[in-house]
Parts: sequence; structure tokens; C-alpha cells
Amino acid sequence: MHRAPSESAPQFALGELAAQLGAELIGDPAKLVSRIATLESAGADAISFLANPRYLPALATSGAGCVIVSAQHRDAAMLRGAALIAADPYLCFARLTQLWAARSRREDTHAVHPSAVVHEQARLGRGVSVGPLAVIENGAVIGEGAVVGAQCYIGAGASVGAQTRLSAQVVLGADCHIGERGIVHSGVVIGADGFGFAPHEGRWIKIEQLGGVRIGDDVEIGANTCIDRGALDDTVIEDGVKLDNLVQIGHNVHIGAHSALAGTAAVSGSTRIGRHCTMAGGAGVVGHVSLADHVHLGARSVATHSIHKPGLYTGLFPIDDNASWEKNAATLRQLHRLRDRIRALEKNSKP
Amino acid sequence: MHRAPSESAPQFALGELAAQLGAELIGDPAKLVSRIATLESAGADAISFLANPRYLPALATSGAGCVIVSAQHRDAAMLRGAALIAADPYLCFARLTQLWAARSRREDTHAVHPSAVVHEQARLGRGVSVGPLAVIENGAVIGEGAVVGAQCYIGAGASVGAQTRLSAQVVLGADCHIGERGIVHSGVVIGADGFGFAPHEGRWIKIEQLGGVRIGDDVEIGANTCIDRGALDDTVIEDGVKLDNLVQIGHNVHIGAHSALAGTAAVSGSTRIGRHCTMAGGAGVVGHVSLADHVHLGARSVATHSIHKPGLYTGLFPIDDNASWEKNAATLRQLHRLRDRIRALEKNSKP
Amino acid sequence: MHRAPSESAPQFALGELAAQLGAELIGDPAKLVSRIATLESAGADAISFLANPRYLPALATSGAGCVIVSAQHRDAAMLRGAALIAADPYLCFARLTQLWAARSRREDTHAVHPSAVVHEQARLGRGVSVGPLAVIENGAVIGEGAVVGAQCYIGAGASVGAQTRLSAQVVLGADCHIGERGIVHSGVVIGADGFGFAPHEGRWIKIEQLGGVRIGDDVEIGANTCIDRGALDDTVIEDGVKLDNLVQIGHNVHIGAHSALAGTAAVSGSTRIGRHCTMAGGAGVVGHVSLADHVHLGARSVATHSIHKPGLYTGLFPIDDNASWEKNAATLRQLHRLRDRIRALEKNSKP
Repeated sequence: MHRAPSESAPQFALGELAAQLGAELIGDPAKLVSRIATLESAGADAISFLANPRYLPALATSGAGCVIVSAQHRDAAMLRGAALIAADPYLCFARLTQLWAARSRREDTHAVHPSAVVHEQARLGRGVSVGPLAVIENGAVIGEGAVVGAQCYIGAGASVGAQTRLSAQVVLGADCHIGERGIVHSGVVIGADGFGFAPHEGRWIKIEQLGGVRIGDDVEIGANTCIDRGALDDTVIEDGVKLDNLVQIGHNVHIGAHSALAGTAAVSGSTRIGRHCTMAGGAGVVGHVSLADHVHLGARSVATHSIHKPGLYTGLFPIDDNASWEKNAATLRQLHRLRDRIRALEKNSKP
Repeated sequence: MHRAPSESAPQFALGELAAQLGAELIGDPAKLVSRIATLESAGADAISFLANPRYLPALATSGAGCVIVSAQHRDAAMLRGAALIAADPYLCFARLTQLWAARSRREDTHAVHPSAVVHEQARLGRGVSVGPLAVIENGAVIGEGAVVGAQCYIGAGASVGAQTRLSAQVVLGADCHIGERGIVHSGVVIGADGFGFAPHEGRWIKIEQLGGVRIGDDVEIGANTCIDRGALDDTVIEDGVKLDNLVQIGHNVHIGAHSALAGTAAVSGSTRIGRHCTMAGGAGVVGHVSLADHVHLGARSVATHSIHKPGLYTGLFPIDDNASWEKNAATLRQLHRLRDRIRALEKNSKP
Repeated sequence: MHRAPSESAPQFALGELAAQLGAELIGDPAKLVSRIATLESAGADAISFLANPRYLPALATSGAGCVIVSAQHRDAAMLRGAALIAADPYLCFARLTQLWAARSRREDTHAVHPSAVVHEQARLGRGVSVGPLAVIENGAVIGEGAVVGAQCYIGAGASVGAQTRLSAQVVLGADCHIGERGIVHSGVVIGADGFGFAPHEGRWIKIEQLGGVRIGDDVEIGANTCIDRGALDDTVIEDGVKLDNLVQIGHNVHIGAHSALAGTAAVSGSTRIGRHCTMAGGAGVVGHVSLADHVHLGARSVATHSIHKPGLYTGLFPIDDNASWEKNAATLRQLHRLRDRIRALEKNSKP
């Protein structure tokens, strides 16, 4: 969001980058780079990086104007030209992208677009930007320097922390809260009702969802992800959590700090995820269970019970050519009987 | 949606609650409660409930000012203080949340916000609320007392039944219809084109989707859920159906009354789901099949053929620590051959 | 989108249809039809089609005013009345729906709605329609005859090709591009940040996503689907690709021409899908792998490695009644040990 058109791409001198990134420069500090690129695609105008030793062969042949490497690869890098030596080249690359984005990002307007509909009882901090056709309801609070994108909806009594950036078309429901320095992508819905009903004579009687959503600082939320409000208490997302696109977070879920959930992951209601957990793409957790800190779920793997021990857990049907799958899947449905037949054979084979 | 900030939380006298909920009160009818809470977190200002005998130990120690219990637990409840005796405590709790929400909900404006763009040929019933920056197209009909949230889009010829509430940023496509007392959460898209193409010389030729969507009364639809329009006939969602977030309903699906689909469930085109069915989180049904009434699909379980008999069906790879999973998954790909080996052993072991 | 209310449904004379579809007419060219319907539901006012020989019995009993059949079924069709003879009846049906939609589609306004917020530096081609409350940012380019639906957001420097139609509430991020004749349904988010972070002392350091999204011609994108921008280079969707609803496309994915992904399919970052591939509902591909041309993934099947050979691949746990599933799933977790037991038996049984 808020990127300038490509004609105004930023340029950096290597000396400036070394200073800002805290890296050691080998080469001419006045030399300019105007792109970040992979080792394979980089030209003389680009800076690249070697984070994974697997790509070491590409280092020698790369046309990059400068490369970021660890001290371990200093010699290999010097053989080919300018280099930045960093303790953690991947982290250095991440910080480099941030410098790039900061310089290429269009100036926020620090103003409320005249087409936005902002309730007179809403409170906006200094330097807030509100995009065209956004709606901010009664009693909402927008923190200093926050950006409310075009066509966003901020419900009554909701709050957005300082420096948090909402892309276009985000919905933050009434009485829901997100902390500072967050990033929320388009289509996110925070604070829709949790899915709660009491069965009665074959019908579903709605349990009104009276809780809210509380999201900590430094949280990023991907496009079209949903975080439901709690039934009685709040749904809670702690500091530093990263959610990818199309993730589903049920009511009264609690996600511990610095956990990361990849695209289409889903967590059912009242489940508690620990700190520093990861869920790969499409992983899931059923309701009313808990995962310990540092639990990692593999792609499409569903935790159907609490997991108390850190580690990697997987449950994914291995893909196969369809003919083989058909035979194995058919046999799988008789697996219990196969076990019985093995037992019988074992019995018979005993002397 | 439309909740007042928390400073104006409602208060209820126990006598009033007993009357409205049709429950027997044990205790002082003038006593006030101002929160609903779980047994564990409830203080003296809160009303709580015991719906599951599993939580019976928490009843004795709860600090709740009042508890809802069944007649069976009357004595245990009286030992600790005020109580409401109800035939079905969970249902009573559900109705209690409704009283709460009705009182805390901000008054709807019963007006069309001046920033909304309403076509002159649209017809709005009495007491309709239309939020800021909503769009209502030519020939759309909004029933009495309905709420069209901020930034909603109501297509040409679409209709919204009386008392139905659309949250912010809902899309109801042209010629699509939803009945009375519905609740539609933000980001829902009703009436996008179904996914239909004829293959022709390696390309996909679009089959225009000429049907609509017909949704009955008392239907709730979760955030970012999609219900596609039919190819020739309509996609149909019957009365009382509840869909959670991020659910996918393909074209010409028919979902029977009072069925409930949890988050990220998906139903492919032309499939028919019976009445009173449930699909747990991430469950699916392939296209062109049917499920009988009272069929229940477990989490992430995919019905690949029609199911004619009521009951619970499951197909989910059990999660395991990754090392165990790797060994079992690798073996699974040889399962058919294992069966052959068992057969051979059985042959050999016969006298 | 943009369909007229049903009272103005189109009518076609059979002679006109035969001419436009390049089909041979058997029957009265002046005869009118006003609906397209399945063989089973068609009345005398409807035209129907026989694409699958399985439905041949329905042909004889259909009440359709006209049927589209292949030359092979000419005699059977003539026995019952008017017919169009086409080389490929399903393709002919697809084209028929296009005639229908073109005639029933409301005239686009070819104008910018006065409530839209269009930056003065945006460039709009001839005949562009911009719906109410849309936002078009600085430097965006909208091609000739394109339709930007109500409440869409077109970011700075983005472009929409000629004749492409965006439904209401689409987000096209800054510097993202879609080609000609595309169709984008509501809730789609193109150009949110890819999910990239460098781990550092237990926290996630954001890798700013500096690439864009490039989408070819004749691409259709279903409701609430997400296509992330690339980290350094662009995410690429080639010509003729069709994406269904709620599909997730990670950063730097490359999808080859004329591939089709059904609802809730997901492709992780930096993965390359070939041309003419299909992914059934909920299928997935992990990151950093590639699928050859003409690879087909079954429902919910996840490719965890590159696939070099065309064909159909599947990995789906077969559904079963829950009691059977429980027994088989429990046994599955011992599968590796079962194999060892079979080996031991084989050893013992050897003479």
C-alpha cells in the first residue's frame, strides 16, 4: 500500500546502507544500487544476499553490484566485488527491504480525506491519515500516526494503536482493539460474531457474542482473514503475532506472542495457542484445546487434542498418482481388519 | 455490530430476568447483575450458567451473583446463593445473551445516511437503516426494519427481508434474495458467478451464470463467506441455516433447513445437503452428490459420494509427532502391497 | 453483476440462435425461446442441451422447446421437436449463455459515478464505467471499456486492461496489473503483502514485499480470493487462468496459462504451476516447488514436492462412518510397526 509508481524507485549508496544496516562494507561507499534482487536475477544496479549456503554456487556467478553475506563467506564475496558483511544476512536483507519501503512509500497525507465519514465523537491522534470513503464510528479512537485506508470501517468504541496501518477495506468491529505498529491487509474482518448457538427443537438459537477482540502490538494480519469477537470474554491475539491470508480465528481463541499462522490456517473457538508456535498452510486446531509454546503444525495438519510438548506435528495424507492412491485408500478402510489378520497370523505362527 | 461502548453496559434485576426468560427465581428479585460470565470468571455482579455437568465442581466455588441451572442442580445452586431454574440452562443462557444484546445495542438510526447512494427505483420499507457509503441499486427492495450496514452493496433487483441485518461491507449481488431476520457479517459475497467453463482447444469458455441466490428466513452468514449464484437455476439456502466464516458454497448448491456449517467448510457445485446436517470446521462435500437429513461430517472430512444414512462420518489423517508421521505416511503408500503380503502369508499358513 | 431484473428476460428466435452459434437448426426459425434450462426442468419456452450421453434418457421426455445435441443424437432429438445440431453441445451451451448474458446485462453507464473518488492523475480510457464510491488512486490506468464496480479500490500505479470487469468491492493494490477481458469478483484482494519474515531473537522481522502482481488477459478471479504481491519480483498469473472463490496465491507464485483452481485451493510462495493444470476444491501446493504442465490435483490433495509428470494425483483420507474411521485411524498410527510385524512373519514363514 502507498507505494509510489516505479519511476521513482529509490537509490542508495553502499556506504549509507552499511551505516544504516550496521554492516561492514567492502567496496566503494559511493557506489549506488537501485534494486534488491536474487543472486540469479541481479544486475550491476542491484544488491543481493546469500542467506542459505545452498545458493553458494550462485554467488560466484551473480551479476549483483553488491552482495550481503556472513563473515564465513567474506572471501568468496570479495572475489566478485562489493559486499556487505553481516552477522545474519537474512535479517540484514529484511532490514534492507524496510529501508527500501520507507523511501519508496508515498508520503501519507496526515489528513482526513474529505469523503471519509468520521463521527464527531471519534478521536483522532496527531498525524493520522484517513483514506477516501472510510467510515469511523462514534467513540472510536485512532492513535498517533495511524493510517486508516480507503473504505475502511472502524466500529463504535473500537481503537487503533499508534503507527498501525490498515489497508483499504478493512473492517474493525465495534469495541475491538488493535495495538501499535500493526499492519492489517485488505478484506480483514475483525469482530464478526463468533459461531455460537444453542440447539432447541431442531433449530439454532443464537448466542449473542458479547465479547470483543483484543490484538496486541506489532501484529500483522493478512488479506481476508477473520478474527471473531468472543462470546462473553474477548478473543485475544498477543504481541508480535503474524497471520497470513484467509485465516480463521474463532471466538475466544487466545494466540500467544510471536506465533505465526500461514495461509488458510484455522483455529476453532476457545482454543489456546502458545507463544512462538507456527501453523503451516491450512493447518488447524479444533476447539477447546491448547497447544504449548513452540508447537509447530505441518501443512494441513489438524490438532484434534491438546499438545503439551514442543515439537513438529504432522497429519497429512501423502499425495500419490491417483491409481496408487485409489488402491491404498481402499485398503486403508480395511486397515483395522488387516491388523486383526496379522494378529491371527502371529498366533498361528507361534510354535 | 451496533454495540454501545462498554461504559453503558446494561443492568438487569433478577426478577426481570426470571420473567423474561420464563425461569424460576431463587433469591432476591431486586438484585442486579451487570455482566454475563463463565462460572470461573464470574464475580458478584455477574450471572453465570451450568449447562454441562462436567463443570459441576466449578458451581460450588463460583463467585457469580446468580447462576442458571436445571432443576437437577437446584440444591447445589441454592447452597451458594441466587439461582434461576430453567428446563434447558444452555438455551436459557442463549436467550439471556439476546436480552443483553438488545439492551446494549445502539439504537439503529431508522434512516438513510446522507452519504449512501440509493437508486431512486430502490424500495425501502419502514424503519430501514442504511449506513454511511452504502450502495443500493435499481429495483432493490429492503424490507421493514432491515439494517444495511456501512459500505454495503445491494445489487439491482436484489432483496433483503424484514428485520435482516447486514454488517458493514456485505455484497448482495443482483437478483439475489435473503429472507427475514437474517444476520450477514462483513465481507460476505452473495451472488458472485459460479465456477463454470466449457473446455475448448485448451482454453476455458465461460458459462455465464444466469441463476441467482435464494436464502430463507433466520439465516446467519459468517464473515467473508461466499455463496455463488446458480448457473441456470438458483442456489438455495433454506430457513434457519447457519454458515460460519470463510465458507464456500458453489453454484446450485441446495442446503436444507437448520443445517450448520462451521468455518472454512466448502460445498461444491450442484450438491444437495439435507436438513439438520452439520459440517465441522473445514469439512467438505464434492460436487453433484447429496447428503441425507441429519448427516454430520467431522472436521476436515470430505464426502466424496452421496451419503444416504444419517450419522457421523469422518475422514481425517490423525496428527502425530512428525517422525512417527513420516514413517507411517511412507508405509501408507505401500499399504496395498502390504495387504497382498498378508494374503500371501495367510495362504502359506494354511495347512 | 449488472443484470437487469427478471421482468426483462431476453427472448431469442431459434433462427437467430442457429446463426450466432454456428449450429444447424432443425425446426421453425421463428420459434422463440425465453429461458435456458436443464432437460428435466425445461418447458416449451426453454432451450436445453445434451452434453453428456448419461442424460440421453431425459432427452426423449424433456419438455424443452428446443434442444442442442451433437450430430450423433440428431435422430433422437428430431423425434421430439426442434433442435440445434452442434459439434460440441457443451461448448455451444456455453456460448448460448454468453448471448443470454450480453442481452440481459444492464447497459454499463460508460461514465464515472459522481460519488467515486478518482485521482486527477489517474488515466481512464474511453467508455470506462466507474461505479459509486469507487476509489482510483494516483497514476492508475483503466483501459478502454473497463468496468470498475462500486466501492472498488484501485491503488496508485495499478492498471486494469481493456474490457476487464471488476465487481463491487475489489481491491487492486498499488502497482498491480490485470490484463484485458478479465473478470474479478467481489472481495478479491490483489497485491496484499506476501507472508515474509526473518526470525530474530524469537520475533519476526518483516521483509517488505517490494514486488507487484502481474495478471494476464482473460483471467477470472472468484470472490474473496487473495493474490499476494511478490517479495522482490512479481507474482505472475498467465493468460486464461481461472481462479474460483477463496483461493490463496502466495507471493512470487507463477501460474501457467489456462490453468484452473477450484474453491479454497491454495498455493504457497515461490511455487510454479504449469500450463493447463487443474486443482480441485481445496487442493494445495507447498512452497518452492513446481508442477509440470497438465498436472491435475484431486480434491484437498496437497503436493508436497515437485511433480514432473502430467497426470492426476490424489491424497485424501477416505471418509467413513465415524466408528470405522476411529478404528482405522488408530491403527494407522501403528502402520509402520504393522509392516515390521509382516516382515517378521515373512521371515518366520520361510522354510
